[in-house]
Amino acid sequence: MKSISELRQDLVSGDWVVIATGRSKRPNDFIVPKRPAFAQPKSTCPFERRLSNAHVVYAKDGKAAGSDWWAQTVPNKYPAFDKGICAVFNKKGPYIVTNGAGAHEVVVTADHTRSYATMTDQEAALVVRMYQDRFRTLQDDNCVKYISLFHNHGRLAGASLSHPHSQIIAIPVVPPDVASSLEGSERYFAKEKKCVHCVMLRYDLKNKERLIYESEYFITLAPFASRTAFEMRIFPKAHQSRFEDIAPDEQQDFAHVLRVSLAKLYHGLKNPDYNFFLHTAPVKNAHGARLDRSHDHYHWHFEILPKTAIWAGFEIGTGIEISTIKPESAAAFLRKIKV
Amino acid sequence: MKSISELRQDLVSGDWVVIATGRSKRPNDFIVPKRPAFAQPKSTCPFERRLSNAHVVYAKDGKAAGSDWWAQTVPNKYPAFDKGICAVFNKKGPYIVTNGAGAHEVVVTADHTRSYATMTDQEAALVVRMYQDRFRTLQDDNCVKYISLFHNHGRLAGASLSHPHSQIIAIPVVPPDVASSLEGSERYFAKEKKCVHCVMLRYDLKNKERLIYESEYFITLAPFASRTAFEMRIFPKAHQSRFEDIAPDEQQDFAHVLRVSLAKLYHGLKNPDYNFFLHTAPVKNAHGARLDRSHDHYHWHFEILPKTAIWAGFEIGTGIEISTIKPESAAAFLRKIKV
Repeated sequence: MKSISELRQDLVSGDWVVIATGRSKRPNDFIVPKRPAFAQPKSTCPFERRLSNAHVVYAKDGKAAGSDWWAQTVPNKYPAFDKGICAVFNKKGPYIVTNGAGAHEVVVTADHTRSYATMTDQEAALVVRMYQDRFRTLQDDNCVKYISLFHNHGRLAGASLSHPHSQIIAIPVVPPDVASSLEGSERYFAKEKKCVHCVMLRYDLKNKERLIYESEYFITLAPFASRTAFEMRIFPKAHQSRFEDIAPDEQQDFAHVLRVSLAKLYHGLKNPDYNFFLHTAPVKNAHGARLDRSHDHYHWHFEILPKTAIWAGFEIGTGIEISTIKPESAAAFLRKIKV
Repeated sequence: MKSISELRQDLVSGDWVVIATGRSKRPNDFIVPKRPAFAQPKSTCPFERRLSNAHVVYAKDGKAAGSDWWAQTVPNKYPAFDKGICAVFNKKGPYIVTNGAGAHEVVVTADHTRSYATMTDQEAALVVRMYQDRFRTLQDDNCVKYISLFHNHGRLAGASLSHPHSQIIAIPVVPPDVASSLEGSERYFAKEKKCVHCVMLRYDLKNKERLIYESEYFITLAPFASRTAFEMRIFPKAHQSRFEDIAPDEQQDFAHVLRVSLAKLYHGLKNPDYNFFLHTAPVKNAHGARLDRSHDHYHWHFEILPKTAIWAGFEIGTGIEISTIKPESAAAFLRKIKV
């Protein structure tokens, strides 16, 4: 009796996902139907000009910019975190509460419509350099335990402005999903004396059926336990625990791989909405532990999750996501898309 | 300096949520704008008639039904889990995979439009009895480790059919979100020799600011660490680890509280989309451990999550959700809604 689905375990977190092969679709079924693009007018866009309160601004040549800017990082106008009293944990009856001390910044590129998929490598590289720049600045705040970097593309992915932008949020706790990933990585390392991500990468590089793109330093994979249809993860091939530690040539190469991966998604599925985010080790400075090596077992990576389905009661109530295409089929489809 | 947000810790899972008071809105801001209701025609609705493959059917008087049925449980036409080879865990390189062995059922009520919010107590009680009925049947399958019960209301909540229905999925693993809740409950019990949910309930019953509704046996609360705006949780006031163990009078009372809670949401926010799901201890039979008491520390409950925001990159990448209204304000608003 052929099973109508399989449960695949995420080797790091221990979580399960369902690949519902019985409900499965062909890659072409995921192509986004023609719809009005999410495009707000330039005239009222707050990101059209260089803002006076920008933390940092780059010109296209990578130097500090005048009015001819390419990328800027500005404070979020409606921040979820801001400078404040540093991580005092208070009891309220049996409960624990702390201030949202941290930072909430927005990384903006000058072009009103072109996002990674339609940038040049050089343009993308400057944005990646700006991410690293902000990480290195924000980690000096001793309140900050973790820095989250993410990007929302399209309304379904939660973007409120259509002008391409990424967000950086510095927070005073290690978030649960990162903690679970760190613990899984640590558990594996304690048992096997190896980085769990390195083990998966080596297997997938050899096996090739989940490989989407490969460069000198980076690899894009459809993860074995994909959370959504067409999920992609980008890993440095060599073990590295912190995104902010990448060298300039790795940075250039990473920007190229991020651009190519998102361009494959853009052309293959006709510009679907997506989120991407970074999972990296907590900042080294955290509460004075600058020399802390306890997260050296971790392997940073980007996760790109297209909005191909709505999370309903099962997903929200169990944490198990159901994907209706095998990662191997999604990878075969994306591998072939020329960009 | 006033903080623009606070981080609240979920006492059970250890997870954090952000209450962004700086972005905060009034309860009325969450009222769903007038929109075409999600209403598919009766003529093509597959749930309009009693299905010949129904597992169980009740009439309005609670007896086995003829054509005059009120509730039926039917197999899901596009199941994510089905009877199959029982939980063989296979290795694929470093990865682990198993068959989706289990069951996927749909609990359907006869009225094409009336859901819990607009049912009578008696009608709701029969649905709750049917949930229990199915739990007691499905737990006899030795493949099944956990039974997930959930309900999707509205398109934003992932409902594909507008005709009211709940789903029951029996699976061969304990899902990650439940495992995390079980572990937190166990950790607290080991340390404090008390049920963590009982401690919270006692505090919230006394404190009253998060109380939404209370009956003889049950209580509806806005949880201290609410994951979404207007989240509600329904708990039995007396400690009980398994939903399927409720006595007939508790069942009646629970149905009343579920109906009233959803009616408050329906009238207060003008019929918003929502998901609800059950968190309960894993089934006792699991792999022969029928007398297993290791989850007796757990306290079952229903969680109701209105779709008041889109989870974007931050939420998906960190597991930290941002809510823009204090649970205390949401509770005060819902408490006052007469139903």
